Amino acid sequence: MHTSPFLGELIGTMVLILLGDGVVANVVLKQTKGHNSGWIVITTGWAFAVTMGVFVSKAFGSLDAHLNPAVTVAFAVATNDYSNLVPFITAQMLGAFLGAILVYVTYLPHWKVTPDPFDKLAVFSTGPAIRQVGPNLLGEAIATLVLILGLAGISSKALGVLATGVGPYLVGVLVWSIGLSLGGTTGYAMSPARDLAPRIAHALLPIPGKGSSDWGYAWIPVVGPIIGAILGGLLIRAYTL
Amino acid sequence: MHTSPFLGELIGTMVLILLGDGVVANVVLKQTKGHNSGWIVITTGWAFAVTMGVFVSKAFGSLDAHLNPAVTVAFAVATNDYSNLVPFITAQMLGAFLGAILVYVTYLPHWKVTPDPFDKLAVFSTGPAIRQVGPNLLGEAIATLVLILGLAGISSKALGVLATGVGPYLVGVLVWSIGLSLGGTTGYAMSPARDLAPRIAHALLPIPGKGSSDWGYAWIPVVGPIIGAILGGLLIRAYTL
Amino acid sequence: MHTSPFLGELIGTMVLILLGDGVVANVVLKQTKGHNSGWIVITTGWAFAVTMGVFVSKAFGSLDAHLNPAVTVAFAVATNDYSNLVPFITAQMLGAFLGAILVYVTYLPHWKVTPDPFDKLAVFSTGPAIRQVGPNLLGEAIATLVLILGLAGISSKALGVLATGVGPYLVGVLVWSIGLSLGGTTGYAMSPARDLAPRIAHALLPIPGKGSSDWGYAWIPVVGPIIGAILGGLLIRAYTL
Amino acid sequence: MHTSPFLGELIGTMVLILLGDGVVANVVLKQTKGHNSGWIVITTGWAFAVTMGVFVSKAFGSLDAHLNPAVTVAFAVATNDYSNLVPFITAQMLGAFLGAILVYVTYLPHWKVTPDPFDKLAVFSTGPAIRQVGPNLLGEAIATLVLILGLAGISSKALGVLATGVGPYLVGVLVWSIGLSLGGTTGYAMSPARDLAPRIAHALLPIPGKGSSDWGYAWIPVVGPIIGAILGGLLIRAYTL
Repeated sequence: MHTSPFLGELIGTMVLILLGDGVVANVVLKQTKGHNSGWIVITTGWAFAVTMGVFVSKAFGSLDAHLNPAVTVAFAVATNDYSNLVPFITAQMLGAFLGAILVYVTYLPHWKVTPDPFDKLAVFSTGPAIRQVGPNLLGEAIATLVLILGLAGISSKALGVLATGVGPYLVGVLVWSIGLSLGGTTGYAMSPARDLAPRIAHALLPIPGKGSSDWGYAWIPVVGPIIGAILGGLLIRAYTL
Repeated sequence: MHTSPFLGELIGTMVLILLGDGVVANVVLKQTKGHNSGWIVITTGWAFAVTMGVFVSKAFGSLDAHLNPAVTVAFAVATNDYSNLVPFITAQMLGAFLGAILVYVTYLPHWKVTPDPFDKLAVFSTGPAIRQVGPNLLGEAIATLVLILGLAGISSKALGVLATGVGPYLVGVLVWSIGLSLGGTTGYAMSPARDLAPRIAHALLPIPGKGSSDWGYAWIPVVGPIIGAILGGLLIRAYTL
Repeated sequence: MHTSPFLGELIGTMVLILLGDGVVANVVLKQTKGHNSGWIVITTGWAFAVTMGVFVSKAFGSLDAHLNPAVTVAFAVATNDYSNLVPFITAQMLGAFLGAILVYVTYLPHWKVTPDPFDKLAVFSTGPAIRQVGPNLLGEAIATLVLILGLAGISSKALGVLATGVGPYLVGVLVWSIGLSLGGTTGYAMSPARDLAPRIAHALLPIPGKGSSDWGYAWIPVVGPIIGAILGGLLIRAYTL
Repeated sequence: MHTSPFLGELIGTMVLILLGDGVVANVVLKQTKGHNSGWIVITTGWAFAVTMGVFVSKAFGSLDAHLNPAVTVAFAVATNDYSNLVPFITAQMLGAFLGAILVYVTYLPHWKVTPDPFDKLAVFSTGPAIRQVGPNLLGEAIATLVLILGLAGISSKALGVLATGVGPYLVGVLVWSIGLSLGGTTGYAMSPARDLAPRIAHALLPIPGKGSSDWGYAWIPVVGPIIGAILGGLLIRAYTL
């Protein structure tokens, strides 16, 4: 049995992106069984994509189960320990890239029957509802800050040790909450791995009739989350138990 | 690490209102990703806004995590201890005000594209489906009474100590339940902080094309919840373990 | 502190029916905020109505928290102890009647604006999608049997003692499941108290423009659930740990 | 009290299929209360069908509660112990067949009023959104692989023992997640018992106006899940704690 935090982050993020991008594929691609089934499906799907990513990540060796560079950055800032930064983020980017490829494969017959290139990109990467650099960046930073504060709350020493199995579920509920409430503007990327790695996959994969990978927007769901993560990490260090 | 119940109530209520008002913004403002996604999105969003507010509140120092003046009143009546009343309610009002500002900022590009002033107010404050003072007041009182009885049930000594992490989730489920079932008349404010502080923010913020803050209705989601809270507190003192 | 199983069953069933009938009111009455929000809202609302009824019931003194004559019958059959039958069912009927009155009061302005008398009855009592005595009776019996088997599963000694607070949540999930899956035919009454007591309230209350209370159907959601409950009780006694 | 793993697998799978096929009946058959209520209802219904199947299965004697030949295969591969294979799969097939008959009975008045034979088959068995052998087989294999990895995560020794009652809930959440995210292509059979036994029931039952049982497709939701299960079992054996 060969487990490692690197493998756990990689497989966990792969499952996260397969399930997370998968629910978008189900809702936006044509002729799927969940076509056009709405925001409740998108947000519930992403929520439990995270829960299941966390469970799988732990089983394969990453008990931390960050699955998101922003989380890794926030906890590095909060604990002043940056040793996980490079290996975790590498594993997360690789896992997200592989997850995006699996989504492409799973929904293989549906790319050709979906005419709009924008819908196809939406499976892989987020885009803003209204494109404005400042508010989009701020929106991603605020959503990520809430993610980090929520994670700090769920894992707070003030509560004591969570009942086993409840933690990953609650992390999913946190992402459900953020998606429902704050996802309306930029699609709550909150993670460079979730957005950038599938965008690269979109650019490389032979998707029929695909359009631009929208590289002009790509930096926002990277920089916004990192701003939120650093701010969250500092708040946790200063003010929580 | 500087934690305090005051800070916990403030930050927790801020997160609660950011997420709670946020889901309304997502559903009622134009050109959002969750536009018009319905009552299931509204109620699920508010439910987990409460869950996450409670987690964050505890982590920042308020192990009670009331986040709502009606809850503080009810527990003061139930325990005959009024010492938390002023500091908690102050913190809750401040937190709710800050949360409302964060919603305004998060959904910045969407105010201008939403023509109806009523939709913009709805993000911040509740309004009645059918305006009738008596039933509206009674509706808020009944919903708040159920909230207090539900909280008493969840935290009852008759059950023993909840598994860690389960309590804040169940409080969210309670609010989910009330929203789905009793929210159809006045929008289940159940809290002066949830309604009044964002209404003040609505009045002060430079929201493009905003209309009245409907001050004529503002007292109902303050007085109704307090009536329900006092009644609930008395019932808990008299009849529960 | 005056608690008793009778009071617990009464208040718990009152909360259950207030929230359960409340979600139907929200969905079927006109001009509500949840009008026409669909089966997911109905079933989620009923699910957590049960969860919250159970919590409140326990806090007010009924640690068993049956809230349903069919459950009381099933456990009487399973344990061969019929001593709770009369007091519990009396309390459940009274509680359900009071809950129905509270729904009437909560949604007071909405009765007049709802033209269809059938919609008004639907708030209080179930009715069949397609009226056929045999299948309707069988449908109620099967749904109730699944309810009883599910309750036996959740509370099985084979699992050990549930984490505190998880039990009432799971009972709600059980009712969610049955509603989603088996509620499509007769509306999953599964309880004489849930259906008969509110039907009596419907007959007595001064609801504007109300029609028949459909007494011809009223025996089916009484007899069907009792058949399912007895069968379930016998199966539990014979085959479960 | 006569319990056994065989009985537990049989009754648990029966409940699973009654509730799982039941939600499809509610959504696709005509004149039901949940008619056309969408993907969120389908996926939530299947999720908690699994949760309740697991609870019932445990209570009647199968503490493993596989309820799915693919799960039995995966755990046989992972543990290199094939002794459960024949009895468990036999019980699962029998239980699924009985569950399908119960669905037929529960929704008895609705078969005649539903004109489309495809809708009637959909209650019992899965079918592909776009019929292409390779991608359909691959889709079922990938969904099943995620199921197995998720189950391994939930039950991982790395987490410690789950809080009692949380496990079956989380298994439901896992199936919820897969349905929302990966069910859009082939309808996430992920189990020979779930698909083949109800298909046989469809062929045998006197359903008015039924059409073909689509035997040409029947092998895909048998072989695809077994491929995914074997792969998942090998991964668990090699890489998890």
